[in-house]
This record gives sequence, structure tokens and C-alpha cells, in this order.
Amino acid sequence: MNNYTLSILVANASGVLTRIAALFSRRGYNIESLTVSPTLDPAVSRMTVVASVSDDQVLEQIVKQLNKLVEVYKIIEPELGSIDRQLLLLKVSCNPTTRSAIIEILNLFRAHAVDVGAESITAEVTGDSAKLRAITELLVPYGIIEMATSGHVAMARGAKGMAVPRR
Amino acid sequence: MNNYTLSILVANASGVLTRIAALFSRRGYNIESLTVSPTLDPAVSRMTVVASVSDDQVLEQIVKQLNKLVEVYKIIEPELGSIDRQLLLLKVSCNPTTRSAIIEILNLFRAHAVDVGAESITAEVTGDSAKLRAITELLVPYGIIEMATSGHVAMARGAKGMAVPRR
Repeated sequence: MNNYTLSILVANASGVLTRIAALFSRRGYNIESLTVSPTLDPAVSRMTVVASVSDDQVLEQIVKQLNKLVEVYKIIEPELGSIDRQLLLLKVSCNPTTRSAIIEILNLFRAHAVDVGAESITAEVTGDSAKLRAITELLVPYGIIEMATSGHVAMARGAKGMAVPRR
Repeated sequence: MNNYTLSILVANASGVLTRIAALFSRRGYNIESLTVSPTLDPAVSRMTVVASVSDDQVLEQIVKQLNKLVEVYKIIEPELGSIDRQLLLLKVSCNPTTRSAIIEILNLFRAHAVDVGAESITAEVTGDSAKLRAITELLVPYGIIEMATSGHVAMARGAKGMAVPRR
């Protein structure tokens, strides 16, 4: 199973998310990560879906099915080398002895502390999956109290944008 | 209509997202932003939903309905003052004359350029909704080619975590 990232521009309407989620689950594909959020145009939302799919052919089928939905305006399959980022919030257990070691790790990964207490540090860090996995693994020994990742946001490099086609 | 943020721990299984999305859309509530992503426990996913709901009573109803689903392990309604962040990717049109002004704005908001070309700059920035709205508004005059936000990730301050109850 490989992870594929799709960026989709959809109508900002109640029920669209349900239809798209149903399209994946009906075929038994699990959605690894999904993000839907507003765009500059209030009528349009942007969705980024990461799904684990067995091969390219299956992915092609999903894209075809998605294109049939009237609420789907545009689908982009990010190419290799495109920007793909996540935001990670990590709450790590700490005490006066371990605090400086934890802060050193945060600095290495250009993570920022957003909340510091006597017994915990909460940090935010952005990056690709590999970087976020690396910092998580380094912090596991100190005790991770809670973590939350934002799902992927993906975008092609260069000046070309993802415009909504004229409706 | 107010925006409410819910953090939900759910089973990492195909179909869960469909059920939860259906629960909102059946009642006509539009989901402003939704994020689902893996946790340290491969059997559990974390969902952050921002929905526009008319009042607290309606929100209470939704929480009750969600609690009835077997795939829902835990729901947290973040309190006031909790950490609530988003990641924003912004691709802005630029030329040799406007580039330095754009980079100045990025620095003001502690945004990082992740891709720079002759005609565009792509930047990443994290923060709450107000900060992201502010930087977007400042960059609109230069021409925003594309934007993608990650949806919200929310977490309480302090050392308390959001553990999965024993199943």
C-alpha cells in the first residue's frame, strides 16, 4: 500500500465531505489524513486527502469517480518534489533535569515552544512526514503526553496556481 | 453562527469519517474545517472539527450524537485559552520590485519562504485564525496565486493529556 496525496477544490456546501468520504470508504480505502478548509473564494473549499491505495490504477479509478461529482471543481495529483507539509503539536513531559535536553531537540528541528509548564512543554513544528517522525522518535523517551498533526497541505513549486475552472 | 472546535479520538477504520461527516450534514451544519490524522496508537485517529453552529444547545446535541457512535472514543471541547493553530501555505506573485516588500511582511509574521522563483514566493506560516487572516490581507495586493490552510489542531495548555479511555 502506498500513500497518495490529492488536492481537490470542492463546493463549500453541507454534504460534500460526506459524499467524498463515502466514495473512499465504499471501496474500503482508508483515509490516512484529510484536511478541508476555506479558500479566498467563500464558495470553494480545498481538500487534501492522503489515502493508502494499492496501486496507480486504483488511484486513477478514484480520480475518475471524484470527477463525476458535480461538487468537485478540480483535482490535482501533486507531482514528485512538490511542497507537502504538516503542522505537529507535541506535548512532552519534562522536569528540571530533562527540560534543557528537550529544548535542544526542539531547536535542532526549528520547533517552537508554545506552552511551557513545570511538568510539560508543548511545541509546534512544521515539515514533511519524515522530519515529523524523526522529532517524535527523539522525544518518545521523555514521554509524549499528547500529539496532534494537522494533515497534509500540498502545493506545486513554481508560479503556477490551482485556479477554479469557470463554472 | 459561531465557530466551535471539537477534538475527537476515533477508531482508525474505513467508514468512520463518513459517519461523522454525515452526522453533521444531516442536520445541515457545514464543517468549516476538518482534520483527521494518525496518532501514536495505530488503531486510533484524531479528528479536529470546526463547525459553524447557531448556539451552545445545538453543539451539545452534536456531542451527544457523536458519543453514541461506537467508533468515537473521546470528545474534548477545547476551553478558552487553549492552543489552536493552523498551518498556511501561501503562493504570492512577485517581481524584482515587490520581492523585498513581500519578504519584509513574511519576516514580520515569522513566516518562512519554502520556494522562491522569478515570479512567485511560496511561504509557510503558523498561527491562529486572526494572524493568518492578517498576513493574507497584507499580501492580497501583490496577488495571491494559491493558498492552502491545514485545518485546526487544538490542544489544552498545561500537562494534562487527552488519553484514550480503556476499551
